[in-house]
Amino acid sequence: MSANWGHHIELSLFGESHGKAIGITIGHLPAGIKLDMDAINKDMQRRAPGKNLMSTQRKEADEVEILSGVLDGYTTGAPLCGIIKNTSQHSKDYSYLKDNMRPGHSDYPAYIKYKGFNDVRGGGHFSGRLTAPIVFAGAIAKQILKEKGIHVGAHILSIKDVKDTHYSLNITPSYLEELNQKDYPVIHDDVYALMQKTIEEARKEGNSVGGKIECAVTGLPAGVGNPFFDSIESHLSPLLFSIPAVKSVSFGDLDDITLLKGSEANDAYYYEGEEVKTSTNHNGGITGGISNGMPLLFTVGIKPTPSISLKQNTINVKTHENTELEIVGRHDPCIIPRAIVVVEAMAALGVLDMLEAL
Amino acid sequence: MSANWGHHIELSLFGESHGKAIGITIGHLPAGIKLDMDAINKDMQRRAPGKNLMSTQRKEADEVEILSGVLDGYTTGAPLCGIIKNTSQHSKDYSYLKDNMRPGHSDYPAYIKYKGFNDVRGGGHFSGRLTAPIVFAGAIAKQILKEKGIHVGAHILSIKDVKDTHYSLNITPSYLEELNQKDYPVIHDDVYALMQKTIEEARKEGNSVGGKIECAVTGLPAGVGNPFFDSIESHLSPLLFSIPAVKSVSFGDLDDITLLKGSEANDAYYYEGEEVKTSTNHNGGITGGISNGMPLLFTVGIKPTPSISLKQNTINVKTHENTELEIVGRHDPCIIPRAIVVVEAMAALGVLDMLEAL
Amino acid sequence: MSANWGHHIELSLFGESHGKAIGITIGHLPAGIKLDMDAINKDMQRRAPGKNLMSTQRKEADEVEILSGVLDGYTTGAPLCGIIKNTSQHSKDYSYLKDNMRPGHSDYPAYIKYKGFNDVRGGGHFSGRLTAPIVFAGAIAKQILKEKGIHVGAHILSIKDVKDTHYSLNITPSYLEELNQKDYPVIHDDVYALMQKTIEEARKEGNSVGGKIECAVTGLPAGVGNPFFDSIESHLSPLLFSIPAVKSVSFGDLDDITLLKGSEANDAYYYEGEEVKTSTNHNGGITGGISNGMPLLFTVGIKPTPSISLKQNTINVKTHENTELEIVGRHDPCIIPRAIVVVEAMAALGVLDMLEAL
Amino acid sequence: MSANWGHHIELSLFGESHGKAIGITIGHLPAGIKLDMDAINKDMQRRAPGKNLMSTQRKEADEVEILSGVLDGYTTGAPLCGIIKNTSQHSKDYSYLKDNMRPGHSDYPAYIKYKGFNDVRGGGHFSGRLTAPIVFAGAIAKQILKEKGIHVGAHILSIKDVKDTHYSLNITPSYLEELNQKDYPVIHDDVYALMQKTIEEARKEGNSVGGKIECAVTGLPAGVGNPFFDSIESHLSPLLFSIPAVKSVSFGDLDDITLLKGSEANDAYYYEGEEVKTSTNHNGGITGGISNGMPLLFTVGIKPTPSISLKQNTINVKTHENTELEIVGRHDPCIIPRAIVVVEAMAALGVLDMLEAL
Repeated sequence: MSANWGHHIELSLFGESHGKAIGITIGHLPAGIKLDMDAINKDMQRRAPGKNLMSTQRKEADEVEILSGVLDGYTTGAPLCGIIKNTSQHSKDYSYLKDNMRPGHSDYPAYIKYKGFNDVRGGGHFSGRLTAPIVFAGAIAKQILKEKGIHVGAHILSIKDVKDTHYSLNITPSYLEELNQKDYPVIHDDVYALMQKTIEEARKEGNSVGGKIECAVTGLPAGVGNPFFDSIESHLSPLLFSIPAVKSVSFGDLDDITLLKGSEANDAYYYEGEEVKTSTNHNGGITGGISNGMPLLFTVGIKPTPSISLKQNTINVKTHENTELEIVGRHDPCIIPRAIVVVEAMAALGVLDMLEAL
Repeated sequence: MSANWGHHIELSLFGESHGKAIGITIGHLPAGIKLDMDAINKDMQRRAPGKNLMSTQRKEADEVEILSGVLDGYTTGAPLCGIIKNTSQHSKDYSYLKDNMRPGHSDYPAYIKYKGFNDVRGGGHFSGRLTAPIVFAGAIAKQILKEKGIHVGAHILSIKDVKDTHYSLNITPSYLEELNQKDYPVIHDDVYALMQKTIEEARKEGNSVGGKIECAVTGLPAGVGNPFFDSIESHLSPLLFSIPAVKSVSFGDLDDITLLKGSEANDAYYYEGEEVKTSTNHNGGITGGISNGMPLLFTVGIKPTPSISLKQNTINVKTHENTELEIVGRHDPCIIPRAIVVVEAMAALGVLDMLEAL
Repeated sequence: MSANWGHHIELSLFGESHGKAIGITIGHLPAGIKLDMDAINKDMQRRAPGKNLMSTQRKEADEVEILSGVLDGYTTGAPLCGIIKNTSQHSKDYSYLKDNMRPGHSDYPAYIKYKGFNDVRGGGHFSGRLTAPIVFAGAIAKQILKEKGIHVGAHILSIKDVKDTHYSLNITPSYLEELNQKDYPVIHDDVYALMQKTIEEARKEGNSVGGKIECAVTGLPAGVGNPFFDSIESHLSPLLFSIPAVKSVSFGDLDDITLLKGSEANDAYYYEGEEVKTSTNHNGGITGGISNGMPLLFTVGIKPTPSISLKQNTINVKTHENTELEIVGRHDPCIIPRAIVVVEAMAALGVLDMLEAL
Repeated sequence: MSANWGHHIELSLFGESHGKAIGITIGHLPAGIKLDMDAINKDMQRRAPGKNLMSTQRKEADEVEILSGVLDGYTTGAPLCGIIKNTSQHSKDYSYLKDNMRPGHSDYPAYIKYKGFNDVRGGGHFSGRLTAPIVFAGAIAKQILKEKGIHVGAHILSIKDVKDTHYSLNITPSYLEELNQKDYPVIHDDVYALMQKTIEEARKEGNSVGGKIECAVTGLPAGVGNPFFDSIESHLSPLLFSIPAVKSVSFGDLDDITLLKGSEANDAYYYEGEEVKTSTNHNGGITGGISNGMPLLFTVGIKPTPSISLKQNTINVKTHENTELEIVGRHDPCIIPRAIVVVEAMAALGVLDMLEAL
């Protein structure tokens, strides 16, 4: 199950950070979709590194070369494979990591699982770089959803202890679009200065910070999803937990629904004309695992990037000794801003899959 | 994907709250396991209703009748089907719910999805009662894991705003066992009086409360899991989100890892003799989607039970009018105590599946 | 993967020949289908044993008890579980088979796989009896397909070396229906006397015979199926090979398409009005893995029943000695007549699954 | 399910005959396998076109470029993606096929399914060329199996009505190896002259012929496989039917087991020392869906290549008129010799998958 995902829409992800190329194959896309390359490229840029002080200085064009599944700009219905060639790797930086396990990274479990044969350069297949092909696939999914009146957007909910607010009850596609135009999408613009300060402080001390991203999907009709093993939550969560560093997923418009009483947590229904709405959306548009027609809302928590410059205690698996480690090289002090579009991509892929499988 | 789950171990869940029977089929169990019926029955009792004031007064023996897959007490290797007959249903209670949608419940989305044909009596297939067969399957999984030196346990982390503490760094199987013996497993016993008060208050006002359950899996070797789509988090989360009312899942031993800096969140490795350990376990035994040998730790957040007696605003889908609803009948003011063993069951099934598929 | 099957429609099969019950759970059925119990019972009778000299004398009512998924005669959309209680088992007959492996049966491989813990009574989970729940599920699938204008029918193509002819080019639903009414559906009625004689001879000498069943699906629109791993052939064949004793599956209206030249094997297209037809149907309605609108045609080859009364050489796995075995008890000298409805069931389930997943 | 296949070992196939590249991603390969590039290249050559008069004159180097999953010659455990660039396409040849549907090809069903957006050049994604990446994946699977003592080999059983014989009862790995060395692997060498004559005659008249390939897997231990939906037959058949033009699959060492009586079809067991053998292998090493330790044997029937030069009747989907079609370009009059290694590849992938999932 590691390479492939899918119920209807299928994904197959491959590549290593410093290998020849990374890529993704998307199966069961409908034929005849004219790919919106501008939208795809824009999303690729939202994830791309090297834009500013707050992200890694590795510069990659991240241009997707489509190997199959598209002819004259339209999807053919055959599996669509897109690859991104690796061009800017500095593999020497990583040679000493073969034996010294970076805390918080995949290094040690991967060393055990793959008996030392895994590619450690740049994190190999575990690299956050593998989210680039996911953003590519997600951009296509977002385009197909858009044509069905379904919009996906996300914003920074928090950076460490600096918090933006949750989406309001009546978010609109145009508001999601507007947030998407921002370099640092937050609902309260002024909060970003504080976030920036938090990130900058981490960067200066060779440290890192994490945060939370809230995502909304509007226009999803009621009746999508299933009870139990294929509830919307069960369907989306594996995709969201596939994003490196995501450690929590919660559904609804609150930080913590468990603090409410039932009378507060139950979103009351009412008719507005013929349309069914709820007066609050604490359940994030899902009850019983199935959509109720309100915006789908969820939040992912992303731990601080494990790559830091500070000296850390760890083990050397060759010498079997305790040791200290200083990691040199290019690091993101905070990946939250770049991860927004990855969260959107996973949400779009999961929702499209559920819709196509109806 | 709604009825079936599985990669190696397979589950197929069926039944409706007021139908003839509920049950589960478990495929790919190893042959020759002598079922520990005492352990199974004990787990069934931990979930069973009617034990005290704090749970629904519906009394069900919840005895599992095994239809297949067991001969002379040993698993045969063939699919094991266990059913529980429904004996105590009061279907009249629910007749008026056909048209009046209970807020926070599956009623409205199910009405749309199933065009009104779904069984609304007692919540039908969406009932929390469907977790009984899951507990049965989980008890078998726990037994098999135990024989491999892997132990699963869970405790109440919070009821509404009353909090127990997280597991300590060095939990042992015997400590998990000890907690399991308690009627209300909390780490700090005195905190339960407050929890009880909170539940009792909710019950008195016809309301409900939710909370959090923390679960630990000890003895899981390093190297289990995969990057991306089949990370441990991705593998377990759909099972956990299948539990009715679960709205959040987070991995690690903290309420919120995003509040830390990288230097704090990175669990430092060290050798203790030949054994690899980490000095903290904020990543819950998982980095890069793979186990690192430390206890697997996660927390699920369960919203307050949507069934409350208080009058609520809602819609009538027949008359297309806004209306008010008072739900009579037997309700749990708090399902957290009964849900502990369900969380354990899902954890055990997910972990066993990953181990068997290695 | 042994218990569960499914892409959209899901099956989970359980039970052992002499256990308490056998059954099947069907997931993802549409809600609101009024089950045609007459059609279901008729199909159950077509498979049921004990009808005449030519089948086993074990008499089972084979009445399905529906445990879930149906309310007031309509499907609820929840997993539908039907069970059949075992009532007529003579378990003593089989006790000596624990150590003496019946040739041609699952006994020896199952003994190795399940380390002797498998239920050998009546073949346990490997029994042809497990096809009864499949016929139940298939009858529901056939009913749903019928409402979409798709009809499934099968006939005896051969018993040993006595052959009926293949379907003609322009079979109609009413012709399939007419064949289905026959106790022994053959196209040329007179051929059945010879078949009967062949079966009777086998019975008298304590032997058995096999044969072939040809199946047709009419009304399937063009465009169903996929290239490669989910071609129609790839989708249906695992279901067909799940039927005990099926050893070959071939698609098309010929015994052997490999004897033709390309110019003969290519079914030429033509317009009849606006309808696209082919002048022959040697490809059985499928090219490139996808339906072309002509009837779907395939043939399964079923080996002679391995249960025979004649003395056979075999091994005793306890004593590790070569030995001889005489199997007493009730045997079908030929299961072909009873297998027809099983083939139809698998075809219907496979086709419905592909249609629902479109 | 079209792009992806897999239970444990995962495949994701992509590419179009005249697109940029074709390729495959293989997930869940064990880490630390030193790829035998000579064996891989040899298999690629066995499938490659342009070797002689009897195959298409299109010349392709068919060199695999490995994009991921291999480092310093060893598998890393990460998904292995290999691509083959298309270099020799003559796309003009195919332009007129957009509207005129080639009989026996995927053209018409694909036109309906993909609404005319599918790539028709060279058959697009439906091209036999897509079997090249499968051969690549299969060569790796064969290497891994070899290291477990399991050998896979295949030979030409028939070309049209010219027949070789089935494998003898006691085939050995070295005999399979020996057959593999032949350019045209047949058991009775003299029969190939007749086969060649049959192919040559077809070529001269612008026609084509098909045939059968028999495949053997030796060294497979008893106890692999499952009853019903994941029987060995059910596991392998979808892979085999994924090979373009395969229309039949049968298991066992006979043309037609249905012609036998039970007493003949039941392979009698005996001990040879401690080893369990059968005195015949008509069941092809499988009873009850599970391996019995004897060689696994099956035969696939491949229809004559639909690409012929002869004039054919067909339809024009643009003008909606009946028409005639002459296909120019490079065609194989018989693909059987090139398909042998494809059958081996599918067998190896299916068997490896079952073994890894044990």
